[in-house]
Parts: sequence; structure tokens; C-alpha cells
Amino acid sequence: MLKYFMPVTVFFSYLNQIYPLKEHLVTYLSEKVTKIEIKKGKYLISPLDKEDCMYFLVKGAVRGFTKIENKKITTWLEVEPVLIGRIRSIDGQGITEEYIEAIEDCELVVINKEMLTYLYDNYFEINYIGRVLIERSYAAAEERAFIARIPTAESKYLRFLKTYPHLIERIPLRLIASFLSVSEETLSRVRTKIAKCTVFTE
Amino acid sequence: MLKYFMPVTVFFSYLNQIYPLKEHLVTYLSEKVTKIEIKKGKYLISPLDKEDCMYFLVKGAVRGFTKIENKKITTWLEVEPVLIGRIRSIDGQGITEEYIEAIEDCELVVINKEMLTYLYDNYFEINYIGRVLIERSYAAAEERAFIARIPTAESKYLRFLKTYPHLIERIPLRLIASFLSVSEETLSRVRTKIAKCTVFTE
Repeated sequence: MLKYFMPVTVFFSYLNQIYPLKEHLVTYLSEKVTKIEIKKGKYLISPLDKEDCMYFLVKGAVRGFTKIENKKITTWLEVEPVLIGRIRSIDGQGITEEYIEAIEDCELVVINKEMLTYLYDNYFEINYIGRVLIERSYAAAEERAFIARIPTAESKYLRFLKTYPHLIERIPLRLIASFLSVSEETLSRVRTKIAKCTVFTE
Repeated sequence: MLKYFMPVTVFFSYLNQIYPLKEHLVTYLSEKVTKIEIKKGKYLISPLDKEDCMYFLVKGAVRGFTKIENKKITTWLEVEPVLIGRIRSIDGQGITEEYIEAIEDCELVVINKEMLTYLYDNYFEINYIGRVLIERSYAAAEERAFIARIPTAESKYLRFLKTYPHLIERIPLRLIASFLSVSEETLSRVRTKIAKCTVFTE
């Protein structure tokens, strides 16, 4: 029999692979973290949310988006397992205009900011784990900054294919187009062209 | 009399503000870290460099750039005090095509990857400090990904003014233009327009 709710167990197992969690930390965490479910199309975070949380995505796909000049711009795309949230705001520089939307039905573990601060101050191994996880988030943000600078739709999509092969089958084309800042029509054309090239070179 | 070379002292002071460094850690670090100077226009890192280091910029201004379709694209701009480097490659996902160039004469403290791994494994407070520093780098990367998606040159420059007021006087216009992915002529026009608006509203 599982001691904790399944999503929390998955979360602990994920952390444990980065640095072994001591039993008393597991006990503490299992009392504090909560799990939530979000249906496809619903918002996990909108600019109206004042509480500052981080989330571990146990199951599902999500996107971050923001509005620039009244247009929804997809800023990131993620599937499980991954830590997500308005991580910038931990540093007091929050993008308040940020939304997080479920692309599929999602299961998540919630970690609120007060608890996280407490953990960082009292459990040094959480700093080790936090550092490793934020290094991953940082690498992902650098990649997004890079992909946004690629000048042509074709090169953008080729980079997308290389970096995010696991997203191609799960994320709708319109959201990939929004993430790459190209129109859906252009992206469809690029995909057809690349598919033809692949056939010829096989 | 200062016990350590000046740049190293500045570096320790910077770290100490994030989390107090124990005396034995200061002693260890002061034996291990080295300092270097790079003249304006020279490369701190080019894709040819195999050694993976991080740098603490004590004095000066630098830019990261990459080549996309044979064009130099400025990916980031920084002035002291800041931790810089090919941080992505720590996670084994290095952008090997990355360059770091001195925009001014620079003084830096060098932290090599082996030492950093040793520190993370043996000094838990370094994980606390590392986490805080990488959170800052992450926030900066998110901001760069955001600014790259802003559709018009004017909105991009207004965001640049808001986020990087400390860079305006120190970074040449051509590099700001490159960072914003707009031509220097367009950026000059935008600056003139904004300057006029400011005069009218004052």
C-alpha cells in the first residue's frame, strides 16, 4: 500500500533522484504539500492570483502565456515531469501578466512560497535540489530566448524539433506556432516542406 | 591590508551577502579561485574553448553572442557585479556556438567546473548561494526570452529602458540594437521619437 497520495510519491521520487531525502524531510513534506487537478483549458495561474506557488507537474501538459499588445503569446510549453510556476517572482521580479493554462487534464503538487523559503533556510539538501532544478529551468529559459531569436520559420521549427521532440505529438500545432511566433499557416507549410525533404533523404 | 587580491575580495563579499561564508570555506576558495583580466574587444569564451568555467565579473561590461546563419546575434548584455558563463553546459546541454566578448576592459574571478562540483557536494551553503544566483540568472533569461518576443521595435526598446536602465549609458547602441534584433537605424529612430515624447510630457 502506498503511504502517500500517488502524485506526492512521484514528486518525492523525482526529488530523491537529485539528492536523497532524509526520512524526517519526507515526513515534513508529506504533511505540507498538497495536490491539485486542473482540467484541460483551465488556468492554473492567472494575473489575478496573488498567492505565489510553485508546482510540480506530475501528469499533463501546460503552457505559459502572456499578453503582448492584446495578443496571447505562448512563452513556454512543458509536459510532465517538471517544476513550473512564476519562478521569477520568487526573486521579487514577477511577471504579473503571466498565465499558466492546462493543455491536457493535469495533476500537480503544490509548493507554496512560505514553505519553500522555510525549506531553503532549514534543509540544506533542498538547496542542492532547488539549485539543480533551477539550473534546468534556466537552461530551458536560455533555449527559449535562443529560439525566439532565430530569424526564419523553418530554422525555428528545425530547432524546435531538435530541442523538444517529446512535445511534437502532444502539443497542438496552433500552440507550437504561437510559441515560435509564426502563423499556423506558415508552420503548416514548413512542416510539409520538411516532411517532403525527409522522405527524399530517407 | 587586504588579505586577498581585490577582485577575489569583491567576489567573497558578494557571496557573503547571500549567505555567510565560513572562514574555512573562504580559505579554501581563496586558494582555488583565480582572477583574470580581459581587454575590451577580446573573447572570454569562444566555441573553441573546451574548459567549462564560470566567471564572476568584478569590473566591466560583457556580451554573449552566437552566430545564427552567419550573423552575430547578441544574446545577453551584462555589467558588474554578476556571475556569467556558459551556465547551460553545466547541465550537459551547452550552447557550443556561444561567445562571450568584453565590451569594456574587464576583471573577473574564474571558477572552474570541477571546483564548483566539489563545492556543491561538500559545502551545502554553496548550494544555497548557487541557488540564489541561478534564480537571478533564470529571471534574466526569462526576461530575455520575453523581450525577444515583443513584436515592435518601440515596445522592445521601452521594455529595455525599464529592465536595463543601468545598461543604457554603458553599452554601445549597435549592441543594444543587436540584442533587440532591430537595425541600428530603426533603434536610432525609436530613441529620437521617445526622447521627443519625453520632452513633451515633462
